[in-house]
Parts: sequence; C-alpha cells; structure tokens
Amino acid sequence: MLSHACGAVFDNPDLIALACVGDGEAETGPLATSWHINKFLNPINDGAVLPVLHLNGYKIANPTILARIPGAELESLLRGYGWEPIFVEGHDPLPMHRAMAAAMDAAVDRILTIRAEARRSGVAQRPLWPMIVLRSPKGWTGPARVHDKQVEGFWRAHQVPLANPRQDPEELRLLEEWLRSYRPAELFDSEGRLVSELKALSPLGPRRMGSNPHANGGLLRRKLRLPPLETYAVAVAAPGQVVAENTYPLGQALGATIAANPHSMRVFGPDETASNRLQAIYAVSKKVWMEELLPEDAGGSELARDGRVVEMLSEHTLVGMMEGYLLTGRYGFFHTYEAFAHVIASMFNQHAKWLESCLHHAPWRSPIGPWNCLISSTVWRQDHNGFTHQDPGFIDLAGNKSGEVVRVYLPADANSLLAVAESALHELNVCNIIVSDKQKHLQYLTLEQARQHVAKGIGLWSWASNDDNGSAADAPDVVMACAGDIPTKETLAAVQILRREIPALRIRVLNVVKLFALTQPSEHPHGISDRDFDSLFTCDRPVIFNFHGYPWLIHRLTYRRRNHSNFHVRGYKEKGNINTPLELAMNNQIDRFNLVIDVIDRVDGLGSRAAHVKERMKEAILSNRAHAHEHGIDAEEIRNWRWSPGASGS
Amino acid sequence: MLSHACGAVFDNPDLIALACVGDGEAETGPLATSWHINKFLNPINDGAVLPVLHLNGYKIANPTILARIPGAELESLLRGYGWEPIFVEGHDPLPMHRAMAAAMDAAVDRILTIRAEARRSGVAQRPLWPMIVLRSPKGWTGPARVHDKQVEGFWRAHQVPLANPRQDPEELRLLEEWLRSYRPAELFDSEGRLVSELKALSPLGPRRMGSNPHANGGLLRRKLRLPPLETYAVAVAAPGQVVAENTYPLGQALGATIAANPHSMRVFGPDETASNRLQAIYAVSKKVWMEELLPEDAGGSELARDGRVVEMLSEHTLVGMMEGYLLTGRYGFFHTYEAFAHVIASMFNQHAKWLESCLHHAPWRSPIGPWNCLISSTVWRQDHNGFTHQDPGFIDLAGNKSGEVVRVYLPADANSLLAVAESALHELNVCNIIVSDKQKHLQYLTLEQARQHVAKGIGLWSWASNDDNGSAADAPDVVMACAGDIPTKETLAAVQILRREIPALRIRVLNVVKLFALTQPSEHPHGISDRDFDSLFTCDRPVIFNFHGYPWLIHRLTYRRRNHSNFHVRGYKEKGNINTPLELAMNNQIDRFNLVIDVIDRVDGLGSRAAHVKERMKEAILSNRAHAHEHGIDAEEIRNWRWSPGASGS
Repeated sequence: MLSHACGAVFDNPDLIALACVGDGEAETGPLATSWHINKFLNPINDGAVLPVLHLNGYKIANPTILARIPGAELESLLRGYGWEPIFVEGHDPLPMHRAMAAAMDAAVDRILTIRAEARRSGVAQRPLWPMIVLRSPKGWTGPARVHDKQVEGFWRAHQVPLANPRQDPEELRLLEEWLRSYRPAELFDSEGRLVSELKALSPLGPRRMGSNPHANGGLLRRKLRLPPLETYAVAVAAPGQVVAENTYPLGQALGATIAANPHSMRVFGPDETASNRLQAIYAVSKKVWMEELLPEDAGGSELARDGRVVEMLSEHTLVGMMEGYLLTGRYGFFHTYEAFAHVIASMFNQHAKWLESCLHHAPWRSPIGPWNCLISSTVWRQDHNGFTHQDPGFIDLAGNKSGEVVRVYLPADANSLLAVAESALHELNVCNIIVSDKQKHLQYLTLEQARQHVAKGIGLWSWASNDDNGSAADAPDVVMACAGDIPTKETLAAVQILRREIPALRIRVLNVVKLFALTQPSEHPHGISDRDFDSLFTCDRPVIFNFHGYPWLIHRLTYRRRNHSNFHVRGYKEKGNINTPLELAMNNQIDRFNLVIDVIDRVDGLGSRAAHVKERMKEAILSNRAHAHEHGIDAEEIRNWRWSPGASGS
Repeated sequence: MLSHACGAVFDNPDLIALACVGDGEAETGPLATSWHINKFLNPINDGAVLPVLHLNGYKIANPTILARIPGAELESLLRGYGWEPIFVEGHDPLPMHRAMAAAMDAAVDRILTIRAEARRSGVAQRPLWPMIVLRSPKGWTGPARVHDKQVEGFWRAHQVPLANPRQDPEELRLLEEWLRSYRPAELFDSEGRLVSELKALSPLGPRRMGSNPHANGGLLRRKLRLPPLETYAVAVAAPGQVVAENTYPLGQALGATIAANPHSMRVFGPDETASNRLQAIYAVSKKVWMEELLPEDAGGSELARDGRVVEMLSEHTLVGMMEGYLLTGRYGFFHTYEAFAHVIASMFNQHAKWLESCLHHAPWRSPIGPWNCLISSTVWRQDHNGFTHQDPGFIDLAGNKSGEVVRVYLPADANSLLAVAESALHELNVCNIIVSDKQKHLQYLTLEQARQHVAKGIGLWSWASNDDNGSAADAPDVVMACAGDIPTKETLAAVQILRREIPALRIRVLNVVKLFALTQPSEHPHGISDRDFDSLFTCDRPVIFNFHGYPWLIHRLTYRRRNHSNFHVRGYKEKGNINTPLELAMNNQIDRFNLVIDVIDRVDGLGSRAAHVKERMKEAILSNRAHAHEHGIDAEEIRNWRWSPGASGS
C-alpha cells in the first residue's frame, strides 16, 4: 500500500515509487490514513511516491465509495490529504493510453522540479506532490454483457467474467470474441512468438519491473553496522541490587546504530518513543516532520526535517513504512504498547507468510533485514492505564507462524535486552518480537552474562539457586522458572522467602529469554534438545513457571516434554485494573506469596510441615492488598525489594 | 469512535449522537476511513451523527497532523469526506463557550432541517451533514509554563502537567494558582457544596449523560424474535450423502430474523455477503447505500436506501457500527473472511474486556445483545486465494479472553450452523465466534439432531462409530475426534478406510461443535465435566484429533484432561498454496490417508499387522498429489466421496 511505497523511497533520493491504489482497498482504514505519508517525505533526502488512485468503480459485489461520490468531493478529499491530483478518465483505450502517458510525464516532471528546487535551495518543505486519478471501467475490454447481464464496467467483472465456457457454447463464443479482440495475429508470429517490434518495447535488465533491484532489496542491502554496546550497559555489581529503565540503554544503542548506518536505519513508533523510554535516540537523530514547525517546538518536540525516527499515530502506516524500508534493503525497528500490537496483527501475519514463501519458493530473493517489533508498556505495569492496556497475546499469534521466520524474546533486564538486540538485529529474513517493559526494574546480569544468557536461551541462574551441592544424585526439590521482567522479580522474591522459611528446600531457578527454547528443535531453531530440557527442568520435579503472557502458551510449547505433567504455569488471566504492580501480580497469582504457596502445595511432603509458612503468605497477600487500596502504592519493602537470599524480611 | 456513533443512530430516527474525535485518534486508519459513515446514514430512518473534531494540536509528545496542515487543506479534507464543517477556534474561554454554543445550535438546526425535509418529501438522499471543528489549546486553562517550559497549548500538557507538587514548592504554588483560577469560592458554599444556582444548570433524569438510556442500551433492548428455522434446514435423510453450501441456509435465517425485527437487526460485512453465500438475506432487505445509484445497479447490485445489510470495505468501520448498534440495545451480525478477522483483533479484545468489566464492576448495566462474528471462506478451501488467506488463528486470540464472555463454535454442516445460530443469537453479553465455510460440504445431521449436538457441545457419532457392542468392558481401540467441516469429512473418510481395511478395529467418532466443551467447566461454561470427558475420550486410548485451526489450541484446552498424553492433534501448520482441497489437507496432514497412518502408528499392535494398509495410504497420497498437479482438481472419487462405511473404495 501507500505506506510501503513511502518506506521504499525513504533515503532513496533518486527513486520514484508508483503506488497503485484500488478503490476497494481505499475504503480500508489503513489505506485511508496512509495518504498522509506526504507529511514524512523530505524532497531532499527521500525519493517520491506517485500514487495512482485507480477508480474502476467496483469491489467484489458493490460500487466503491470513492468512485461514486461527486467528483468535486473526491478532488477536495485528495487535495485535503495534500496531493495535487491529475485526472485521467474514459473508456476508449487509445485516447486513454495517450492521456495516461501524458499524466505520467506531467507527474514525473513535477516531481523532478520539486526535487530540483528543494535540493538547489537546500530548504526542505512539504510540497504539493502530484498524484493521478485513473477512472476506467472494471473488466475493461472484457465481455460487455454475459447472459444479458452487464459485465464490463460493473462489479460482475470481478475475478472470472465467464464462469462456464467449458459447458456453455454462448460463453465459449464470448470468450473467443473477447480474446480475438486483442488481435493475436498481429501480436504473435506464426510460431506463437511475440513480434519483434513489440518485444523491442520491453525494457531490459534492471529496468524490468521484476528485476529492479529495489524490488529484491536484499541485493542492495549492506550489513548492519552495530556499534559496541558496552558503553550503554547498566553496571551490575551483583544481581538484583540496582534498578534501571530496561529500555533506556536500548534507545542509546538504537541512536548509535542510526549514527553508524545514517541512510539505512530508521525507528518507527506511534507517538511513543519517549513514552517507551527510547528518547536517547534523539541525541543522534530527531523525528521527521514536514508540516509546519512552531517556535515552541524548539522546546523539546525533537522534530526535524531529516529525522530518522518516524512517529504517526497509525501503527498500520508505520509498519507499512518499515516493511517498505526492509524490502528495499534497509533496517527498521518498530515499537509499540503491548496491548496495541494486535492492531497490526494481520500485517505481521502477511509479512511472516511472505518471508516463509520466499525461503521456500523464491530462493532467488536475496535476504532482507529483520522485521523488529519491541513490545513495551506491558501488561504488568499498568499503574495508570489499567485493564484496556493489558493484553500479552500478540506472542500467541506470533507462535502460529512458521518457526523458521519468527523469534520471540523476553529479556528480564536492560543488559539482556541489549544482548537480545545485538543478536536479533543481525538475523535476516525473520520477525523479531521483543517484549520488554519501559519502567524501572531490577537488574540481574552484566552485559557479558546477558550475552551468554541469550546465546543459551534458557539460563540456570546458579546465584539464585541452592540445589548445586556437587552431588549428581540430588535433583532439586522444585524448579522455579520465569520469563519476563516482573515475573522474574516475583519468582526471585518467592525464592528468597522459601530459602529463609524452608532452608532445606533445594530450589533451582531458570530464566527463559528465548521463548521458543522451550519447544523441540524440530519445531523451532531456538528449541533446546530433550536432553538439555530434561536436565534443566528435571524429569519428575514440580516446575513452577512464572510467565509474562497468558499461561497456556507455556503448556502449548512444552506439552511434548517429558516433565510437562509437572508444569504449573502462572501468567496473566485477564484480572486487572489500575492496580499497583504487586496488586496486579496478586490478582493473577504471579506474585511472590502465591508462588510460595504453589511450591508448598506441589513439593511432596511440604504441605503439612509448611502450613505456618502458607498461613503467613495468605496474611501477606491480605495486608499488601489492604496497603495498596489505602495508599495507592505498594508498601515500601515491596517497592524497594532487593535480592538477598541470606537476609531476613520478605 | 465515529463508527460507533453511526451504529448508535441507525434506526434511532430521533437521536443525534455527538462524537468527539481527538486529533490524535484521527491519525489512525480506522478513524480516517470512518468519516465515510455518512454514505450509510439515511435521514429518514436513522438519526444523525454530529462529529466534533477536537484539534488541541498535540498527542503524547508530538503535534498532530490535522492541527498542523494548512487550514484550507483541513477544510478541503472534511468537505471531501462529505461533511460541512463549522469552525470554532480560539483560547479565551468566554467567547469560546459562546461560539461553541452557537455552533452547536447551528449544527442541530441544520440536522433538524435536513431531517424534516427528507421526511416530508419521503426522498432519502445523502445530505451534507454538519460537523464542528473545535480548535482549542491542549491543557487549556492549566499552568502556562512549568520550570520555564511551555505546558498549556503544547504536548507537555498531556496527562499530568505538574509531576511533582509534593516535593517541589514551585509546582505546589502553580497547582494552587491553577486550581484557584477556577474561583472555587464562587462555585461552592462554605460547606463545599456546589452553589444551587449552578446545580440547577445540570440536566435531570435521563437527560443526564450517564443516565441516557441509549448509553445503557440493554434497558431499551427487546428480546430478539428468531423465526422457526425448520423452513431453512437442509434435508438430510442419511449422514454424509448430500452436499450443500453450509452458510446459505443461515443467510435465509438471517433474512427472516431481519423481517421479524425490522428495526433492531442488521448484518455487517466487508463486501462479502454474497461471497460468503449469505445472499438470501437480500430477498428480505438490501444493502444500504446513500451515494449515487446508477441504472445498472438495478441488475443485481442489491442496493437500497433503507437496506439492513451494511457493506463497506472496512472491517473496522463495520465492527464499530455493530458495537454501537449493540450498545444501544439492538442486534447485529458481522461476517468476514477467516484470515482477515485479525484486522479487528484489537477491537474484539476491547469489546470482550468491556463485557467482562460490566459483568463484574457495573451490575447496573443492563445486558446487551451478542457480538456475533461468522468466520467464513476458511483456511481449508483456498482453491483460488491461497496462502495469504490461510490463517485460522483468530480463535486462539478469542481463547485468551475470559470464558465468561467468549464462545467459539465450529459447526460441521449447514444444520449445525443453523442450530448454533439459534442458540447463540439469544445469549446476552457474549462474543460469539462461529467458524463455518461457505463452500458446498457434506451434510451429516438433521436440524433436530444438530440441535441436540449443539446442546451437548461434543457429539459421539454412533452412526460413524463401530465400538458400541453393548459390552461395558470394551473401550474403543482408537478415538477419532474432529472439529470443523473439512476435518470432519476427512476423519469420516479415514474411518471408512479403516473399517474396510481393518474391520476388527473398534473406532469411536467424536465431533466437537462447541470448542470450549474441551476445557474444564471451571474455565468455561461450555466445559464438560472430567467424568464426561473421560467417558467420551477414554482414559487410555489414542485420540486422533483432526482440527480446523492450529493444532496447539487443542493441546492448550485439554492439557489438564486425564487422557491428554494420548492426544495426537492434526491441524493447520502453515503449509499451503492455491491447492486443491485434498492437496491442502495432505500438506498439513489432516487428510484421510495421513489419519489412517496416524491410527496405525498409535494403536498398540497395529503397526506391523497393518503395514500393507500403511503402504497403500502412502501410495494414495502420492497418486492424489500427482492427480491434483496434473488436473488442477482432485480426483472424481475424492470430489464425490460419500459416507458409506460398508462399501469398498477409498
């Protein structure tokens, strides 16, 4: 669509992308707002999009809105969107071809003039870019009427105008008439070859549409230069002692990546780059904006004519732009609030299908950069927005697409997120879904530890475990697994309580950063072997899995694993409001206290011995809920909780 | 949004719905196309929408497009959408209030004039409805500057203009100044009560916004009159002998429902009512269309000024209209192609969350009609459209929402679909997802049998099974379960082969029509008890489950059931193209031959004995694949396969 064409011409200053818009698709929301791409196209740095709105008047079985509104309204609408329309209308082929050629020449001349003026003056302003409105009959030059019903110039021409020529002699006659109307005897020689005069009209080499390198953008792609990330790493002297915004260092890294790839890296977000705490990018590059600039914008709006960050409150337009940018050989990074990733679910599906089809059916397509989506402002921190913003289900959807092209990452801290980005941004022909909240969270790993963690996919966190006594004969009593920032913190807090309250209990702590490590290697390249899985998760001990998303996803990924029947998964179950973080966790039972209860309920022989502990957990739930209701924030010892397995205090 | 307001005024001829559109949301695709609602509003039958585009100029951290484009472009855009804008602009409160009151009066007068003229003349045409553009500062009357940075009239006024008045004395001073600027001493008496003069300005009773019955539409809702469906049932003398379009009778039933509820039932579809074979509705009511009508439209376009079917190529707009219609106490039915249901995933999520919140937190809200979505043109019949149209994952998403408000149905034939509709259309405060393909499929049940089937949720199809020998001691050797039209046919064809090839094998056939019957009653009201489940699926026999959707969903729903470790699920696994139906089934291994192999591989002791059968299945796969490639259609015995357990032939 238009947004893809826009992405294709970003940083391609000599390119003109013609985007043909059908009047059916023009009714969709994503297309209706994508006319506003002209607010983001800079005539100096970027190429131009030449939209051709093709009004053939009909969809499958209906007239189209834009073809039936009064012509003055249509022109007003397109001018309102900021385009200068050239109209080509008619039904007689020869004059129409001439009119279209003239319109194309006029449009391209206008584009080249705009471009030349902007580049000569060095002043980038938003011009009135030209566009073409082509009004021609649907099913043009096909059969006019079939069985006494109008076909040409009507919705009946959709798909197959003659449904039954095999059985119906009248339809066969119409088919023959129709095909003969193109005068094949003049087009082909006696052996069926296109006559040389016509053949000579075809463009050659890369000027053929299918061989234009921009249409096989991997050919033009250069390796992404990713600067060393050490500078941006959070200092972590010991696990679980300091807090930091998990996404902030990623913003620094993205800025540095833009600086290192100034014409082939862009970041896309729906008005949320600062909200998702990626604002460090602005030290390198601003948000592109071609509309009016006001004096007050200098006071922090971070707008510029040549910015590499693209913000518009349309996830559809942004993802379309990113896809166009990737498909022409560049790199992009989209970020959005978690609950609203569903807005672009259908676009993700189609891009994943495209990638998979290319791998299997179009080996001549050169690999393209990854489709990156950072999902932030996640379910577990909705202190302000509440229930409407709680939906971690996009990763369920992602898991339906082929494992060859989909990756899902759940880094628990800032350095893990950096390490994920370092690895993921280099992988070609994939969709990377990275889930990471923007708030201040506890930090666990140094960058070097995080790199190892990401390489493994699932980490056994020995510093949090107490089951490593050197004896191979001893399995842990319980495995505490976790994935995601808040679930990891709650798991660790539960481990701390358990180690204090029941010191003899041998606990193993696992953290999952690559979600698909949980599944078989035959299902996903991230999948770990059954041997590794059995060794980490044991074959017979209870596993209390604290998960970022909907709990069923973990069952779906692990149901074939030997120890699956001992998996007990906690996750989001649609119980939320504008809660404090701990209250929200407790509502969905992913909190420390419920996890301790889960362990007591599931470790053989603990039940009765630990009844007093369980009672204290129930009391803690009640008192913390009361505190949240009374004060609107969690108690100080919850807000400032730090990892300290030896100390007392919950 | 605008589409919801449109739904609210459909068939509410005296209503005016004011829809305030923020300039942030106006950038989204769904909003951008929803200005076209005026093409579907009839000034005789319907009320009017009065849009107020509120340009406060800023989003979270950015200017908005519509506030920064030249004023002439904005006016041109809105006129192009077919509205007549009235502009109210300024920042001085008193004149602004007066100007806004005048604009409101003018707009309402214009609406009433349009309405009166149309009703007097009896001629419904699309008028130029008025709208208001309100341009006022963001954070209006709040602090002008904070810490020397502009706040009022700038994006910094978003959410919390003073972040830290508790600690910062300067912010506290600004807060006090700000609040005192409203002169509370004049507004409240010495005891903090609103002064009576102001109190008297508030409207009373149902004129209060929150007590307007249209805003609690369940109060206005009347019981849906659903006509007897016997007339539309497909005649089924014996199972698996006749074919019929599964959705066609539903179209007849929907037409009859519109006839019985002429002002409170509408059907919504994106240009696909005929494509999804629901065109029998047109015998009762046409598609509403307020734009130009051409003479050729009389030849089958099925358009009318007062149609009860709404078609626009924007799923977002249609679902918004339906939600507005439901929320004001009426009934709606949306249908769409399966792969594109994802387009409205985010809207579904929010409606389900709304319903759940109402149940738990707003008991004073009166129940509303069901949010119905028929998913048709499904994954297994993509003879023409192929891979892009293959995505059965919307039901995965639906399963993430609370079981209290979500229902998923997979009727295998036309009468089952009618029985599902009969039951589902009456249920209040739920989202019904009904998956049913539009093509000709085999028919299995009479309407009466189908009603029983739907009431049970999971049916044991004794006519297809051979394990009922009256001896309670004998469990079946294998359970063949299925859900969905094509998977059911392939399961039955596999059973037929098995009964011919291995007559001693005792087979039980189960068909699942309510998807959530598979899960525990504690998770979903459709869930069957563990006792019933164990009795149907056995506790220890292999279950070969042939599923319409992605196979993991069945594991997710059944992982707590006793026999889960014996479940072997087949479903769609992203292997598709423009295949013949059997070829597509074989690519994903849901076909009869692979199912027979699955049984041989999983029933104890069959493996070696049945090696010859397995070999023949492999040969059948190869020869049928070759046939599909050579002829482009499946072999005649596949296309015309009928259920006949005793006969020979595959």
